Amino acid sequence: MDDRIREHAEVLVDWSARIEPGDDVVVGVAEDAHDLAVAVAEKLGEVGANVVTTYDSGEVSRAYLRAHDGEFEAGDHELAMAEAADAFLRLGGGRNTTATADVDSDTMQAYSRARTDLREARMDTDWVSTVHPTRSLAQQASMAYEEYQEFVYDAVLRDWESLAERMAEMKTILDEGSEVRLVKEREDQPPTDVTMSVEGRTAVNSAASVAYDSHNLPSGEVFTAPYDTAGEVFFDVPMTINSKRVRGVRLVFEDGEVVEFAAEQGEDEIESVLETDDGARRLGELGIGMNRGIDRFTDNILFDEKMGDTVHLALGRAYDSNLPDGEEGNHSAVHVDMITDVSEASRIEVDGEVVQRDGVFRFEEEFEG
Amino acid sequence: MDDRIREHAEVLVDWSARIEPGDDVVVGVAEDAHDLAVAVAEKLGEVGANVVTTYDSGEVSRAYLRAHDGEFEAGDHELAMAEAADAFLRLGGGRNTTATADVDSDTMQAYSRARTDLREARMDTDWVSTVHPTRSLAQQASMAYEEYQEFVYDAVLRDWESLAERMAEMKTILDEGSEVRLVKEREDQPPTDVTMSVEGRTAVNSAASVAYDSHNLPSGEVFTAPYDTAGEVFFDVPMTINSKRVRGVRLVFEDGEVVEFAAEQGEDEIESVLETDDGARRLGELGIGMNRGIDRFTDNILFDEKMGDTVHLALGRAYDSNLPDGEEGNHSAVHVDMITDVSEASRIEVDGEVVQRDGVFRFEEEFEG
Repeated sequence: MDDRIREHAEVLVDWSARIEPGDDVVVGVAEDAHDLAVAVAEKLGEVGANVVTTYDSGEVSRAYLRAHDGEFEAGDHELAMAEAADAFLRLGGGRNTTATADVDSDTMQAYSRARTDLREARMDTDWVSTVHPTRSLAQQASMAYEEYQEFVYDAVLRDWESLAERMAEMKTILDEGSEVRLVKEREDQPPTDVTMSVEGRTAVNSAASVAYDSHNLPSGEVFTAPYDTAGEVFFDVPMTINSKRVRGVRLVFEDGEVVEFAAEQGEDEIESVLETDDGARRLGELGIGMNRGIDRFTDNILFDEKMGDTVHLALGRAYDSNLPDGEEGNHSAVHVDMITDVSEASRIEVDGEVVQRDGVFRFEEEFEG
Repeated sequence: MDDRIREHAEVLVDWSARIEPGDDVVVGVAEDAHDLAVAVAEKLGEVGANVVTTYDSGEVSRAYLRAHDGEFEAGDHELAMAEAADAFLRLGGGRNTTATADVDSDTMQAYSRARTDLREARMDTDWVSTVHPTRSLAQQASMAYEEYQEFVYDAVLRDWESLAERMAEMKTILDEGSEVRLVKEREDQPPTDVTMSVEGRTAVNSAASVAYDSHNLPSGEVFTAPYDTAGEVFFDVPMTINSKRVRGVRLVFEDGEVVEFAAEQGEDEIESVLETDDGARRLGELGIGMNRGIDRFTDNILFDEKMGDTVHLALGRAYDSNLPDGEEGNHSAVHVDMITDVSEASRIEVDGEVVQRDGVFRFEEEFEG
C-alpha cells in the first residue's frame, strides 16, 4: 500500500476526527475508496474503536431512487445507528462522479427531505468528510491519475497546526465584525456587490479537525453563518450539483432571500435547489478560502471552496457551530456551496473596512489597503 | 446487466426475505457483490423498503482485526441498527476467499464472542444469506468464471415451491421421530456410527424463504437441532474454516459432547473452534441435503450442505426455529458445519427404521429399504 494512504488515514483518525478507544464509528466507503477504507480500519483497530462500514455507492443509490415511488422515509435502523454513533468518517471516491445524473431532481429533493433527522443526527457526531483520489475524480479535475494523487495528498498531508494559526486571524476579524460586504468589479462578468450581517455569529477556523468544529479533510477556510443578505452576486467557478454541471450563477437577494436567479448552464438545477424548502432561498454559509496549498479548481467542492483567493456562499442549512447556543440558524434539507474567484478586481469589507483585496488579507505583508 | 442478476435479486427480495413496503432493511455487500447490490437496491426501491448498505470487506476486517489489541466490544451503533432492522440481506462474494487467512484464531474467536448479542439481534430479523458469483468463488470451486455463474444461477433460480413440497416429507419423518442414527461403512474411511436425539425438536423445511424459517439462498435441506449425541463420525467433504483449509475431520461424541477429535488437515482450526466456548463442543444442527440441482462440491458451505446425497452436522449454536417455544437450545458464538457424503455404503435410521440408503429417501421410487 502507498504510504500516503496510511498517512491520510492517520490524519483523518487522529487529527481530524480525534477518535478515542471505544468510540462507535461509522465509516462510509465510496465504490473506489477501498484502499483508504483498509488503512482507516487498520488505524481504527489500533485505536480500539468499534466500526461499522457502510457502502456509499452512487450506482446503488441510483437504482434505489429510480425504482422508488418517491414517498421516502428514513429507516428507523439507519436513524438508530446515527443517533448511537460517536463519529462518521465519509470516504468519498466513487467510480463515476455523474452516477446519479439520470435521477430526477424532484426525487433527489424528496429523498433529501425525508432524511433531515438522519442528517442532523450525523451532524451531532464528530463527522469528517474526505476523499480517496480515484480515477473518476482525476477525470472530473481534468488531471492525470498520478498527478491527481499528488494534488490530493498535497492538500491533505499538511502542517495543520500552523495553518490553523493563520486562519485564527481571519476568524477574529469576522467575530468582531457586524456586516460583511463582498464587491467584485470585473469587466467580463456581471457585477457582485452583496452585504450580509454576521453580528452575533461565530466564525469557524476550519482546520480540518472536529476540535475546531471543522469537518472536512482537507480544509483551510474560515466560515460563518450570515443573514439579512442583500445585493447581487456572480459565481464564476463551475461546479457540479446533483451530478449536473452548473456554471455562471447569478443570484439577487432582498431581505435575506433569493428573489432573482440565472445561470449560464444548469439553471434548472439552481431552481430545483431553491425550491427544496424555504431555507434553500437563504444563505447558510459565508466561507473564505485560505488554503494556498490547493492551487487549482478541480470541480470538487471539498477542495475548491478551500482554495486561497476564493469566497463561497452556500444556499441552505447553517452549521450549529456558527450559532450562539439556543439560537436557530437557517434550516434546510440542502446545503449548496457556490464559489467566486476573488483574485482580481475584488474586495471584502467588514464594517466598511477593507480586510482583503484581490485575495490578499489585511494581516499579510503584500496587502495594499 | 445480466438478466440473471435481476432475477436473483427478485427471488431474494420477494421469495426469500418477503420484504414489504416500509421495511427497514440492511444489505451487506461483499467487495465484489456490487452488481447484485445494484439489482437488490432497485428491487427494494420498487417495493418501498428503507435501505442501509454495509460494506462487508474481508480486507477491511483483516486490517481492523490485526491492528486491534483483542479486547473487542460490539458498537452500540451497530447493535442499535440491528435491533431496529426488519431484515438483513447478506450478499457474499469477496475478492479473495482467504482474505483473513493471517488473522490468528484467538482474535477471530474474541471478535466473534464480543458480537454474540449483535448476531442474535440479526437472527431475530428476516435475514437471508446469498452470494453473487465472483471470480474468487469460481476459483475456490476450481471452476471457470462463466461455468461458475451457471452453477450459481442453476442453484438459485429454481422452482422453490415444488422443492419445498418434496422436503416436507423428510421434515415429517424427523418431526415424528425420536432418535436419528447415521451409519457409514466405507472401506477407505474411518467408520461413522453416530446417534442423536431429536425428540421434541422441530425440523425446518429449508426452502430458501423466511416463510419456512429458511435463511439461505440457495437452500434445499431439512435440518433440526439434535442433542445427546453419541458415537463417531467422519466428515469426508473438504471445507474452509476461518480461511483455513480443513479436511478429513473425525469427531467422537459422548453424552452430547466432543471428547476426541482429529483431522487430516486443519486440526488446529478444529481445536480452535472447539475451544470457543462450551457450546462449541456440542451439536447445533443436523442437516440433510436435498438439492439435487447442486451437482458438485464447491468448497462453499452455502452450496455444499444443500447438495443431495450429503448430511451435515454443525458444532455450536442451534437455531431457534428448531426449538419449542421457551426451550433453550445449544448456545455458542460459533456455528461450524461439517459435511459427509452419504451416496454410498451409508444409511440414515430414524427410531431404528432406515429412511435413507445411499442417498435415496424412503419416499422415493428408487429406495431399497
